[in-house]
Amino acid sequence: MKIDYAGDLAKLRQAKPLVHHITNYVVMNISANITLSLGASPVMAHARPEVEDMVSLAQVLYINIGTLSDAWIESMLAAGKMANKKNVPVLLDPVGAGATKYRTETAKRILKEVKVTVLKGNAGEMQSLAGEKVLVKGVDSTTSAGPGTAAALAQEYGLTAVITGREDFISNGSQSATVKNGTDLFSRITGAGCMLGSVIASFMAVNSDPFAASVEGLVSFEIAGEKAAARTKLPGSFMTALIDEIAQLNEEAYRLADVTVR
Amino acid sequence: MKIDYAGDLAKLRQAKPLVHHITNYVVMNISANITLSLGASPVMAHARPEVEDMVSLAQVLYINIGTLSDAWIESMLAAGKMANKKNVPVLLDPVGAGATKYRTETAKRILKEVKVTVLKGNAGEMQSLAGEKVLVKGVDSTTSAGPGTAAALAQEYGLTAVITGREDFISNGSQSATVKNGTDLFSRITGAGCMLGSVIASFMAVNSDPFAASVEGLVSFEIAGEKAAARTKLPGSFMTALIDEIAQLNEEAYRLADVTVR
Amino acid sequence: MKIDYAGDLAKLRQAKPLVHHITNYVVMNISANITLSLGASPVMAHARPEVEDMVSLAQVLYINIGTLSDAWIESMLAAGKMANKKNVPVLLDPVGAGATKYRTETAKRILKEVKVTVLKGNAGEMQSLAGEKVLVKGVDSTTSAGPGTAAALAQEYGLTAVITGREDFISNGSQSATVKNGTDLFSRITGAGCMLGSVIASFMAVNSDPFAASVEGLVSFEIAGEKAAARTKLPGSFMTALIDEIAQLNEEAYRLADVTVR
Repeated sequence: MKIDYAGDLAKLRQAKPLVHHITNYVVMNISANITLSLGASPVMAHARPEVEDMVSLAQVLYINIGTLSDAWIESMLAAGKMANKKNVPVLLDPVGAGATKYRTETAKRILKEVKVTVLKGNAGEMQSLAGEKVLVKGVDSTTSAGPGTAAALAQEYGLTAVITGREDFISNGSQSATVKNGTDLFSRITGAGCMLGSVIASFMAVNSDPFAASVEGLVSFEIAGEKAAARTKLPGSFMTALIDEIAQLNEEAYRLADVTVR
Repeated sequence: MKIDYAGDLAKLRQAKPLVHHITNYVVMNISANITLSLGASPVMAHARPEVEDMVSLAQVLYINIGTLSDAWIESMLAAGKMANKKNVPVLLDPVGAGATKYRTETAKRILKEVKVTVLKGNAGEMQSLAGEKVLVKGVDSTTSAGPGTAAALAQEYGLTAVITGREDFISNGSQSATVKNGTDLFSRITGAGCMLGSVIASFMAVNSDPFAASVEGLVSFEIAGEKAAARTKLPGSFMTALIDEIAQLNEEAYRLADVTVR
Repeated sequence: MKIDYAGDLAKLRQAKPLVHHITNYVVMNISANITLSLGASPVMAHARPEVEDMVSLAQVLYINIGTLSDAWIESMLAAGKMANKKNVPVLLDPVGAGATKYRTETAKRILKEVKVTVLKGNAGEMQSLAGEKVLVKGVDSTTSAGPGTAAALAQEYGLTAVITGREDFISNGSQSATVKNGTDLFSRITGAGCMLGSVIASFMAVNSDPFAASVEGLVSFEIAGEKAAARTKLPGSFMTALIDEIAQLNEEAYRLADVTVR
């Protein structure tokens, strides 16, 4: 499998696809900024009366359950169903699944009622959705999960599953990949996983293969993280450097890609 | 027309006016920071039970519809009506008008029920409110609008209209101005327009002429942007530099003002 | 009284306690980042259906009323009551108490229905809760309060009271302390008080004496501020430097502690 990172990034920067986010309050600003820095166009809209209109204008829908409420769940479901009707791909980030029943059940409800294209989470979140026994601490994972969990989720729900961690595992049920890029500094800032979601979603808008788009998003975000970590080890400065480095991704940077596809 | 930029900035820093924001989740933090950096005092309050009390304490009300919900619309209207009663000037930023019916109709409802002092938006937003045919992509404008649209809105609603873009057009129905300051980097970060709203609102608190206050806000924000862009071309660093440069505005910086008043 | 700053910070970094925040929209991102930078683990959750589950997983609950709504008040009360049942300590930050009736009454209602461990606010907020006559401008205090107000609140509610300002006053009713660390730059960025709340809450998770934990939090945050202010006087850069310096706190930094315990 040949992935054209730089070619698809160029397409993305040319097309500036509209990425409709229904995401959590904590990361709204940095998610918008990472999306802009990459070259796509973010929009945040969560009100029930407008989510169907907004997703109809968008090239991709990114649902993130990081700060939930009942009203937002209705909007997530309505937006997801309209996205399905309009063939707009959907990325779901089940933040905190496994930590509270409310989050686990909401993630499962979305997976049941909406055709999700890519499901991305950390080990604890993904294991809890796969029905494995897990220990989740807040929204951070304390367990690890391997390619088996990704493949199981991919097959159960008919989607591309992305499990993030020191090594990331991607599976669409038939193909699988491992990405070894990244930096420990991602765990020193809030919202790294959420920003990664924005980056994968942006690639989903220009690459119709969600498996390849997931690898592209992971590699892009994690190489930018590596480059930022080479500039600073301090979390405040790292956050700024990360947004800067996303803007500077280019063909040469992608030589750092550490991906194994099976 | 003589505008005393440095004099009014000094007044603002002395008076530290309270700027009541009802604004969107994405920008709340950076809007508060830009307001503080300029020298005014921001407060965010949106709950129906307290907006009338809060706006009664404030020197200016800034309503921004960037992330709407029904409950917030009620609060915006209640705050706006109390502002009118207390002679507190009102700035409305109709973020995303034209993109969804919900936003367009909310902006029009506020304009109908509240006496708005300054209406500020990008070309697409302002054209959609002026009844012109437009193409809006999410919350970013893809069209351009000229001084005619500003003048039409100013006359229709009896307010000062500000249309932002590479060139900004201001009109109060009898006078008009064009501001050519700014930088393309504003389009690489989220919330530049929203932060500009905070800056104009802050000047409205110390200059009773909304036309002059709008020019002062635009010039101040855009010159700070030019100075930040001279330090960095990268979006993460630019955001930090922009807040720094707002804090450093002074008489010398205002020599960069590129304003034509007719 | 001997306070082991560096020892407790080491414990905190080792234990990475989960700090459940129900806080305002403006600061959610920076509060999460300051908590991570210090070494604890933040989680934000406010939905009524999950707050009891989440607080049961946490080592401390931090309630901040900076952007209120009726639904959130119910969640704050429910989370607080469950925290009491599970012996999870509770920090309350009554942001804007005294500014609007809604905020003052909400703060008082929480103090009445929930056993609060530490109450932290600026002079205006704390004086309004102590029944003193005050002038509050938005969420910033324009008055000053002394150790008497802290002692009165500590005794009235049976808690540790922390009044922030150029000098900070801490009282648990029998002991009192004054902290003179800090920098004027805290007033040039939004959310300094809210971030301080996250830092005190994090120490409360590893030090069972709330009086000592409050002093530790104050000293840690304010010394980091001093070190950041030594690097820059500009507010945008200061915000980044503050997060960096929190990550670098160590035994040597604590030599700057300027604390008087009586």
